Amino acid sequence: MLNLKTPTSPRWLESVRGDVNTLLIDHAHCEKKAAGTALNLMFYYVEKESLLDAMTTIVNEELDHFRQVRELLRKRGVRFRRLPPSSYGRKLNDLVRKNEPGRAVDRLLVAGLIEARSCERFAILRDGIGDAELAAFYGSLFESEARHHTTYVRLAKLFAPEEEVEARLTELAEAESRILAESTDPVRMHS
Amino acid sequence: MLNLKTPTSPRWLESVRGDVNTLLIDHAHCEKKAAGTALNLMFYYVEKESLLDAMTTIVNEELDHFRQVRELLRKRGVRFRRLPPSSYGRKLNDLVRKNEPGRAVDRLLVAGLIEARSCERFAILRDGIGDAELAAFYGSLFESEARHHTTYVRLAKLFAPEEEVEARLTELAEAESRILAESTDPVRMHS
Repeated sequence: MLNLKTPTSPRWLESVRGDVNTLLIDHAHCEKKAAGTALNLMFYYVEKESLLDAMTTIVNEELDHFRQVRELLRKRGVRFRRLPPSSYGRKLNDLVRKNEPGRAVDRLLVAGLIEARSCERFAILRDGIGDAELAAFYGSLFESEARHHTTYVRLAKLFAPEEEVEARLTELAEAESRILAESTDPVRMHS
Repeated sequence: MLNLKTPTSPRWLESVRGDVNTLLIDHAHCEKKAAGTALNLMFYYVEKESLLDAMTTIVNEELDHFRQVRELLRKRGVRFRRLPPSSYGRKLNDLVRKNEPGRAVDRLLVAGLIEARSCERFAILRDGIGDAELAAFYGSLFESEARHHTTYVRLAKLFAPEEEVEARLTELAEAESRILAESTDPVRMHS
């Protein structure tokens, strides 16, 4: 369903269990960035009504998640602060083709793969973080990330034929798995 | 209440009454840009919790207005499309100081002045557009723009003492009136 080529290594859960506060701060930034990505797409593709509607919904949901993660941080007495992002997003975005319509397809598929990986990791956190409040929180976010993934893949098909989009999704998903396998980043949602 | 230095010239209403569809398309873009401005501020000033909360609300409201204007366009059979913006926003943003905390103060006050002018013009449209549906629509948006203006001015005071913010607001409001007086733009929300 999520189009990911490899599951997250068990080492990831082990590392984030050792620094949950950093994971949460990074997660908050990820939600804000996801809202930025969706809003940005609305500036580029104004002629696609269904994209504008779907992105409006996603921006609102991501900002609601952003608020929820900050609320958790506040309850835990952790100050929200700047944090250098993992290299994951940048490396994925470097794969986006420069010319339209390939650019639109790739931007949407990259956004969709990031949602897919978040979704997979939220399930891992729900099942293995060993903190009842966080387990419930990640369980509650799981479904919306899966839905966002589906939305992005569907929207990519506004810009290219279905089989082209599927082939490109396979390529990008392979790259996504490789990027994570090679990651040497410290604790992050996408390390 | 709105801190504007001069009222809109009666010529503006006359010009937009002659090209309501262009006004509506430009208005939709303005709502999208207002959402972008608010979200952008969330990336720059992550350490201000109250700014993050207020901007989240504003992004949601602007995107809801964006959806509403597009709905009006759809009902009228007008295709939403790209439109070169008026020079108003760029000229105002050129006045933003380059160094913090002046930069934060100015970005917030400029955003607040744009909301104020929109609010004043929504009232003019409500009272004089001569189209019952649009009059009701602009009447319904009026209050939120006034509230956004107040929010931006309040947030500016997180970055500098109240009297400094008020003095700078006066300067920027004078510039805002001058920019509109000198405008040679075609029909736009801020022409």
